[in-house]
Amino acid sequence: MYYYNSWSTAHKKPFGAIRVGQMMEVLFDSDKPHVEVKFIIRRDFGKRYEFSMERTPIGKFRVLVPFDVGRGLYFYYFEISEPSDWGKIRHYYGSTGIGGEGILYGNEHDVKPYQLTVYDGEDVSPKWYREAIFYQIFPDRFHNGNDDGHINHPKPNSFIYGTKADTPFYVKEENGDLARWDFFGGNLQGIIKKIPYLKELGVTALYLNPIFSAISNHRYDTSDYLEIDSMLGTLDDFKELLKKVHESDMHVILDGVFSHVGKNSRYFNINGDYGDREGAAKNPDSPYFQWFKFEKYPLEYKSWWGIKDLPEIDKENTSFQNFIYGQEDSVLAKWNKLGIDGWRLDVADELPDHFIRGIRENLAHYPEKVLIGEIWEDASNKISYGARRNYILGEGLQGCMNYPFRDLIINFLIGKRSSQETAQRFMSLYENYPHSIFYGNLNNLGTHDTERILTMVGSRNNLLAIAMLFSLPGVPCIYYGDEVALTGGKDPDNRKYFPWEKPRDEVFQTYQVWSKKRVKEQVLIQGDFSMFFTPTLLGILRYTEQEVYVQLINSNEENFTLNFKEIIFLQPFDFLSLLEQSLEDIEIPGKSQINLILSR
Amino acid sequence: MYYYNSWSTAHKKPFGAIRVGQMMEVLFDSDKPHVEVKFIIRRDFGKRYEFSMERTPIGKFRVLVPFDVGRGLYFYYFEISEPSDWGKIRHYYGSTGIGGEGILYGNEHDVKPYQLTVYDGEDVSPKWYREAIFYQIFPDRFHNGNDDGHINHPKPNSFIYGTKADTPFYVKEENGDLARWDFFGGNLQGIIKKIPYLKELGVTALYLNPIFSAISNHRYDTSDYLEIDSMLGTLDDFKELLKKVHESDMHVILDGVFSHVGKNSRYFNINGDYGDREGAAKNPDSPYFQWFKFEKYPLEYKSWWGIKDLPEIDKENTSFQNFIYGQEDSVLAKWNKLGIDGWRLDVADELPDHFIRGIRENLAHYPEKVLIGEIWEDASNKISYGARRNYILGEGLQGCMNYPFRDLIINFLIGKRSSQETAQRFMSLYENYPHSIFYGNLNNLGTHDTERILTMVGSRNNLLAIAMLFSLPGVPCIYYGDEVALTGGKDPDNRKYFPWEKPRDEVFQTYQVWSKKRVKEQVLIQGDFSMFFTPTLLGILRYTEQEVYVQLINSNEENFTLNFKEIIFLQPFDFLSLLEQSLEDIEIPGKSQINLILSR
Repeated sequence: MYYYNSWSTAHKKPFGAIRVGQMMEVLFDSDKPHVEVKFIIRRDFGKRYEFSMERTPIGKFRVLVPFDVGRGLYFYYFEISEPSDWGKIRHYYGSTGIGGEGILYGNEHDVKPYQLTVYDGEDVSPKWYREAIFYQIFPDRFHNGNDDGHINHPKPNSFIYGTKADTPFYVKEENGDLARWDFFGGNLQGIIKKIPYLKELGVTALYLNPIFSAISNHRYDTSDYLEIDSMLGTLDDFKELLKKVHESDMHVILDGVFSHVGKNSRYFNINGDYGDREGAAKNPDSPYFQWFKFEKYPLEYKSWWGIKDLPEIDKENTSFQNFIYGQEDSVLAKWNKLGIDGWRLDVADELPDHFIRGIRENLAHYPEKVLIGEIWEDASNKISYGARRNYILGEGLQGCMNYPFRDLIINFLIGKRSSQETAQRFMSLYENYPHSIFYGNLNNLGTHDTERILTMVGSRNNLLAIAMLFSLPGVPCIYYGDEVALTGGKDPDNRKYFPWEKPRDEVFQTYQVWSKKRVKEQVLIQGDFSMFFTPTLLGILRYTEQEVYVQLINSNEENFTLNFKEIIFLQPFDFLSLLEQSLEDIEIPGKSQINLILSR
Repeated sequence: MYYYNSWSTAHKKPFGAIRVGQMMEVLFDSDKPHVEVKFIIRRDFGKRYEFSMERTPIGKFRVLVPFDVGRGLYFYYFEISEPSDWGKIRHYYGSTGIGGEGILYGNEHDVKPYQLTVYDGEDVSPKWYREAIFYQIFPDRFHNGNDDGHINHPKPNSFIYGTKADTPFYVKEENGDLARWDFFGGNLQGIIKKIPYLKELGVTALYLNPIFSAISNHRYDTSDYLEIDSMLGTLDDFKELLKKVHESDMHVILDGVFSHVGKNSRYFNINGDYGDREGAAKNPDSPYFQWFKFEKYPLEYKSWWGIKDLPEIDKENTSFQNFIYGQEDSVLAKWNKLGIDGWRLDVADELPDHFIRGIRENLAHYPEKVLIGEIWEDASNKISYGARRNYILGEGLQGCMNYPFRDLIINFLIGKRSSQETAQRFMSLYENYPHSIFYGNLNNLGTHDTERILTMVGSRNNLLAIAMLFSLPGVPCIYYGDEVALTGGKDPDNRKYFPWEKPRDEVFQTYQVWSKKRVKEQVLIQGDFSMFFTPTLLGILRYTEQEVYVQLINSNEENFTLNFKEIIFLQPFDFLSLLEQSLEDIEIPGKSQINLILSR
């Protein structure tokens, strides 16, 4: 009677997010006579607009909406007016909450609208980045490159693990406060020495967790933005790393942690490590004093999530902005000039939009440097500090760390979410993100902040997870050690030292195979994306004008023979018969996936 | 009217403890006519005996008691019968609790008796030992002898301190259990390399905390009695240590920890580190099974003070006794043959007397090897596990770690105990111990189990404490680091790494001066001992037939000029006029001591 599907170009053109100024065509199905249909739009936290839809001869209502009133989120649904004996009856057609096919609502108040993301401009990430296979390194835990195994400059009142096989452990005071930081002693020379290993694995780019001076082993508590942490090595070591990485046709991006600093940093200096009159907490006349917000000087101050170790920076402060990205000798300038290939912004959703824009402008001089950000949720609609954020709508990030993908993969593989819902949620993200962001996301199966994938899904699902990671749009990123089946629960268990003596098994080979396939098959990098499902299987589609990549994932223990009629595609395609020829009666063993590339 | 003083040979001969079979002469003063005096003796936890005392023409009552009924403690006092209009009145004369002068009691029930220690035989410690200046080394915290500073074989799941200046810290689980052991990485080569340093300090013998395989940093949780802990070095390292120590005319004694073992030892093996079928907790057929007492096999077992890390050994078990000291290839045999110079028995008061005797018999083949024991209290009368102990009464220990001396020195210096009571308590210990034990005690100002002396008394008193340590009978022992004014409160703060870079100041020089004096002056080694006091000063006397050593300690802030008439001596001497000539009007500045040696 009434039908609309936001994922089908028979109903909405173009698919997904649109650019400011673009025209959107919407077609709403109804074969009922005498009804009127209105297209209702609400701006995010803003006004309601109505567009009358025009009935077409083929049982559809149509409207063309010019999106020329600015970027942001828009929410839409349909109002259907139907004559009756009692006068006009109004129905509403809105989303189920995910997009795609909708449902009828009786009350306007209850309607879940469709989300439409309207972005400023496409800020496409560099080609090397889009094509890359990333590898995330937590530097303390990767490799110690000193021949004699000694550890560079251990920090005062810290602990070094007795052996590299030790289980990570937080050393706490009786009151639960952290007492000492624990180190394994990985360093930059260690990374340099493992470049051949990484090449063999198929890696083409590195994402390094913070490497600037800090007190902790994770180094998110920056002490000095302009120095390499002495446990990791020297500036010369870092230059050598950049040189060797680039000589190996690889790239490297750094972690930019600009939301907060360490309480013992040069800037805050609460213990006086940097001198009695240096830093905001020791001297109200310090140039850094205005970066912080003191409730009661000097011991009560605003800190990140209340963690007193991490005094929060007032990012509205122009002296801080200049220091990070504005002035000629800014933090970004220093490391950019040395030749790094981009930045990953820590807690990007806690940085003001114009702060991120300032960073983007700084990087605009370097079209080959990428800027991505840490966001844990659907970045298109996350509300942070009471407001929507613009960072993926242009002049901001070029991609996000894609934690939602990880969640979808895990929940599907362990049977917590059906193939149908999994497929729909993937499509919903695809719909919500600007295309260039979606293809610029750094996809991961786990990071230093999550349990390891193997521990989450088990060893058989692990191989399926890897296959999905490399089949989905975006840039795959391998968390160090995952390729040798390292296990690990929550932090700190997910930060074990790399087990270099461990034999490489099928997990390593699986990463190798997929890395090679990704390099070889452009469809995996730039192909359009869609999902399909059967009651038991999940399918990923990637396609270009020339070819179609199809992946069928069987997360069950049982084997299944595909009945093509059972497949539900989330979008219409003109290559269905090609798929049918290739897929009908195909058998997919339990806990495995099949993938093929078909020529159109 | 009535008077007796157990410290005066005018009243009791010989002074102090006596040997089985010796005759004791007791003289009780009374100028009252018509009274009768009885000498009452109770055996320890035993019967009451009466000896009638004979009135002498010079206002004294006298008795000769032959102590030929066995070793042990005897307790005595006096019963005085006086005729009156109401018949006979009985008074009692007993001790105040410390010995020396006594007081009158109305009721026999209330009398505090004098203690008399009766020992089997004199088991005099070797001459080198009696003359030694000891140095206690906690091996993990002394010195790492590896040129490149690497640490030998760090243990799995342990922590190494980031820097040698770090403050020691117990790494615990949330529930308070120890989580990981912490190491600085000192080793045997480190000790070898510091022999010249120790010679310079004046040290002539080393007492090493445990060095056998263990899990912890203190190594009181023995894993294998027959192996050097691999973090400390190899058997060859230990042989080299013995060779170098002996070449330097020094000696070394080891810590024998036979009360308990580690739960992960070869003998108990609860985690299976030594194999799935080895050790008492993994195999009830293990030869070690009978060493332990299981309440519920294998997880509930008797452990030392309830510490589950330390399963307690059943020392009555003959297979364990044979293993430690009985069989040809016993633990003692192995290390004795290598040439060590003696043993310090850990928790000696928790080892059965006959177990200690077994060890003593093993060592009897080696007259140059010393045997001392850890006892925290007055070892002559400590009750342990409901019984008095015989270990200092012959065929046992040759000396004890003298914690009571440390307590007396500290409490006097910080003003918590008067000069009078301090002098009396020193005399009481002198009286209670067999002479050879008293002169065989290892005197300390602090150990790995106590706060450091500097932290206890402050820097000015510290120099006085050192002077007292070297002036008292027994063998002085310096706790590593005390000589460079290392501070430290309770464990683990008292186990810091030796601060090798710290400049040597007057504390070091004070130890050096006293070490030299002790080597030069035999009176400090073998001289008889007594104490004296004024209201403000404490005095130590050591004397031989030839000379008198006298030390005056002023623990006050003010200077004092000695008025000889104010001195109260605890014993009569025939060299008082010599003292008067030398001491009268002598000025002792605040917080200082004066000492002199007078020829008789």
